[in-house]
Amino acid sequence: MTTDGAAGQDRTAQTDTADAPASAIVVGTGLIGTSIALALRERAAEVWLSDTNQAAAQLAAELGAGEVLPAGGRPGGPADIAVLAVPPAAVAAALADAQGLQLARCYTDVASVKELALHEARELGCELTTYVGGHPMSGRERSGPAAARADLFAGQPWVICPSSESDAGCFAAVAGLARACGSLPVRMSAAEHDRWVALVSHVPHLVAAAMAAQCAEAPAGALSLAGPGLRDVTRIAAGDPSLWTEILAANAMQVREVIQALAGLLDEASVVLGALAAGDDEAAKRLTALLESGRDGVARIPGKQGGPAPDYAVVQVVIADTPGELARLFAAAGAADINIEDVRIEHSPGLPAGVAELLVRPEAAQALSAALASAGWPVASPA
Amino acid sequence: MTTDGAAGQDRTAQTDTADAPASAIVVGTGLIGTSIALALRERAAEVWLSDTNQAAAQLAAELGAGEVLPAGGRPGGPADIAVLAVPPAAVAAALADAQGLQLARCYTDVASVKELALHEARELGCELTTYVGGHPMSGRERSGPAAARADLFAGQPWVICPSSESDAGCFAAVAGLARACGSLPVRMSAAEHDRWVALVSHVPHLVAAAMAAQCAEAPAGALSLAGPGLRDVTRIAAGDPSLWTEILAANAMQVREVIQALAGLLDEASVVLGALAAGDDEAAKRLTALLESGRDGVARIPGKQGGPAPDYAVVQVVIADTPGELARLFAAAGAADINIEDVRIEHSPGLPAGVAELLVRPEAAQALSAALASAGWPVASPA
Repeated sequence: MTTDGAAGQDRTAQTDTADAPASAIVVGTGLIGTSIALALRERAAEVWLSDTNQAAAQLAAELGAGEVLPAGGRPGGPADIAVLAVPPAAVAAALADAQGLQLARCYTDVASVKELALHEARELGCELTTYVGGHPMSGRERSGPAAARADLFAGQPWVICPSSESDAGCFAAVAGLARACGSLPVRMSAAEHDRWVALVSHVPHLVAAAMAAQCAEAPAGALSLAGPGLRDVTRIAAGDPSLWTEILAANAMQVREVIQALAGLLDEASVVLGALAAGDDEAAKRLTALLESGRDGVARIPGKQGGPAPDYAVVQVVIADTPGELARLFAAAGAADINIEDVRIEHSPGLPAGVAELLVRPEAAQALSAALASAGWPVASPA
Repeated sequence: MTTDGAAGQDRTAQTDTADAPASAIVVGTGLIGTSIALALRERAAEVWLSDTNQAAAQLAAELGAGEVLPAGGRPGGPADIAVLAVPPAAVAAALADAQGLQLARCYTDVASVKELALHEARELGCELTTYVGGHPMSGRERSGPAAARADLFAGQPWVICPSSESDAGCFAAVAGLARACGSLPVRMSAAEHDRWVALVSHVPHLVAAAMAAQCAEAPAGALSLAGPGLRDVTRIAAGDPSLWTEILAANAMQVREVIQALAGLLDEASVVLGALAAGDDEAAKRLTALLESGRDGVARIPGKQGGPAPDYAVVQVVIADTPGELARLFAAAGAADINIEDVRIEHSPGLPAGVAELLVRPEAAQALSAALASAGWPVASPA
């Protein structure tokens, strides 16, 4: 996997208009299509809109996303690019139609699965030199043109999957489209893409659904005991079952492989739990190993800020609720020549004292504790 | 399952001091023990603190949670209640020790699994009339006394599991403790409790860990494609593996039963995905059924506000960004005699128009669309 140019180097929203399309046709004015159209309109591109549901295209036009495409294509000839923002299973047919009408010089799509569309386009006899598949990694829980936003893609990866037939000029046109939307082009093969989205998107959805399905028959009183953990694990299972059936079906083999590995882990956990219940305390180690592997995995998933927090040690100090207390604490740490990387304050309303948690490099924690304790501060490090 | 008295009827934080303990001993000053102590101190109870880690008890005392318990017990004799806020596997031994020292008239614990402690207490020959197990359904992702908060339990259920031996007076004392913490006592058997927490807490944790474990070996570039869905599904897997091994081991048989049902669903999904990949389009129905069952399950899990949102229909209307536009829209809806239940406004910065989503009872949606369209508003209902 390689990132395409400088834009791939950071995750800040850098919009580059140098290679933005001057004209575009968006086929399918749902959430993604309309959002792309809105972003291109902000770059002053000429945008034409088309949808099998005429009302959806009209609504997008009224939102300022462009003009409804006349039957027969763009007046004046092919646009720079046509974006086929239709469901995965509809991409190849939409490509054949669009190429038949000579709507554009280059074609791309936004489907969340990439091998299927390429395979079907090849079977339909589409012209593959001008088609370069894409997948902007953005979405919202809501759908339809009304939920569209020009900034939907800002700072997010936009995977581009050229095939062996793809023309370099059309690859550049799709990368330009992604950058015009404030997104970060990432180049990989369709097979790589499908393997990784199975892992990071499709399987999590299926797992959330399977967990939520266990709750479908439980008594309401049982579910009233649920905390935020269950809500988090199951939240995405609220998504549209028909749409997700299409997505999962389009990437069936890759999803199946990850699901089988995951079911294997759960089967192993089940065996270990049986051994534990039978008094085999040694089995606990295997359960801990699974949970440790999970903790390691979650630490590797980039967070909202683009990466896991560094691994600091925490020193806890009780502080009085009086003016200047924190300044005195920081002065004491500074006198010991220790750099405080971050600080969190915990204070329950109405209590005379709170706790300052000082985050420092692990090797400095003991020295800080000792220095503060000898200066008279009540210090505790976590057990 | 029955709720205990009026407090169980709603989820607002009603703190009742009528039957709050006048004196309490908290054994184990971690997050939960210290939070209970802080809540009792706010009700002016006399609170004594004890922990095998003397520094943790001292830190809790410095936070205002009470006084460190002298060796040998409370000066002046037994307290009203002793709260054993120790890990599940340590409850029975702590109960035997506390009863040996005659620390209190009634004893409870806060362990997240209830049958094991009762079973072990019986084996150790503890006095079971004065022991009534409990489980406050609150927690934070952080641990230790410094993360404690007096309002940790406010408005949350507190499960109380009397055994057949339990004395009614001690059941009332534990309910009084829960109410003094602002919590809502819920009575159920230890077996019921363990079955339901396996479903709503323990299995979600194991599932999150198994999903996250799949990410432990994936390339960083693959994980950079992750969106909020994967983060939500795996977030709780960041919890302490040793602590969670103890919890899962203590409830092994109940967890195993749910895990096996869930692994069975994933196995079925795997078979269906294989059939879909082989071209059996009929198999899609079984996948949709699983996803629908998941969607139904997630809708039944109470949300932060205490329940799922009512099922309204949405009518979307394009509105101009001009003063008085919304007032005119509402006047048009009012003229058609249709009640708007809720409204959401979507507006991307810099666009000349936005969308108002009007939420109405499903049977009123069509009439509203027709009335607004005939009054000249650009209307679209979602496809």
